[in-house]
Amino acid sequence: MDKIITIGRQYGSGGREIGQRIAEKYNIPFYDNELITRAAKESGFAEESFERAEDRATNSLLYSLAMGINVYGNQDFGFSGLSLDDRIFLAQSDVIRKVAEEGPCVIVGRCADYVLKERDDLVNIFVRASMSYRLQRAINNYHIDRKKAADFILKNDKRRGNYYNYHAGEKWMNLNNYDLVIRSDLIGIEKSVECICMFLGE
Amino acid sequence: MDKIITIGRQYGSGGREIGQRIAEKYNIPFYDNELITRAAKESGFAEESFERAEDRATNSLLYSLAMGINVYGNQDFGFSGLSLDDRIFLAQSDVIRKVAEEGPCVIVGRCADYVLKERDDLVNIFVRASMSYRLQRAINNYHIDRKKAADFILKNDKRRGNYYNYHAGEKWMNLNNYDLVIRSDLIGIEKSVECICMFLGE
Repeated sequence: MDKIITIGRQYGSGGREIGQRIAEKYNIPFYDNELITRAAKESGFAEESFERAEDRATNSLLYSLAMGINVYGNQDFGFSGLSLDDRIFLAQSDVIRKVAEEGPCVIVGRCADYVLKERDDLVNIFVRASMSYRLQRAINNYHIDRKKAADFILKNDKRRGNYYNYHAGEKWMNLNNYDLVIRSDLIGIEKSVECICMFLGE
Repeated sequence: MDKIITIGRQYGSGGREIGQRIAEKYNIPFYDNELITRAAKESGFAEESFERAEDRATNSLLYSLAMGINVYGNQDFGFSGLSLDDRIFLAQSDVIRKVAEEGPCVIVGRCADYVLKERDDLVNIFVRASMSYRLQRAINNYHIDRKKAADFILKNDKRRGNYYNYHAGEKWMNLNNYDLVIRSDLIGIEKSVECICMFLGE
């Protein structure tokens, strides 16, 4: 395996677990919360600020534009004019680029597909699933209150979508962003891993 | 194989060929131009009217709405108020529903995923590919003029997108419409077939 594999996923689809198993199969590093921790440590930001970064993305691009800030431009101009969310995103992006430089790995979420889009060893996977499957996983695996689970899932997807749209400037649900999109509930986690590994080769 | 498999595809991605091979593997019928011919014969429309239906979808929904016509409603009110495109779509939809009733099959294009969406034995696949791969296929396999190929591909995708958006009322590129999306150029036609068959099972 000589690829950098990014995984986007709808909440409760099992995308994170699938990513972990793929990393295990190929014996390559897996980055998710580890990535946040590393980003936090290296950039000197407080770790807590990072933990919910993906859940806090707002429409601050308008604000940034109004302030005349080029969010995606040269980072050497300093962080002074950027929102905390933007600064966290830039620090995370640095970490994503660094771990990708270190060699093949699996990175879940955080617009890694966008951050690494110039690399030609990148494969972008997206995992989706039916609402009923995700409800079941949210309740059983993540112990979300049964009555609140549907709302919780929709809000999480909304946040992830906003985060992606804001940072990557693309629709999260546009299939052109991904090399393989798979519905995990139709065949289950184990078969999804097999199917993705067949696509990845080796 | 006990599924109805629909395949959407970007122009030049090899989606049609992949659909054919899947049908051969499972020894089930494959519908593409055959479907058009059958629709034409059964409905009594001239065959030529059907042949370029997918390529001629326009924004006639606005017109239909302005005329107070419920395009997706009860078909028993007769075809009199509908545009030719809408009448063709309804006749094709009837055929799609009929062949699906007959048993497992592969249906390429023509919003079959939307027409059959109430069925629980449906699996919707989408095939996409890089522009360079599609250019190569357009030139080599379909003998499109090299200078006009890029424009030709974009126009074809635009037409297919318009057709889908108009009839299905959904964005063609929204990954939520599909159970599996695969980039054929990364692994080739043969491997794409294998990967899809692994997803389909049996």
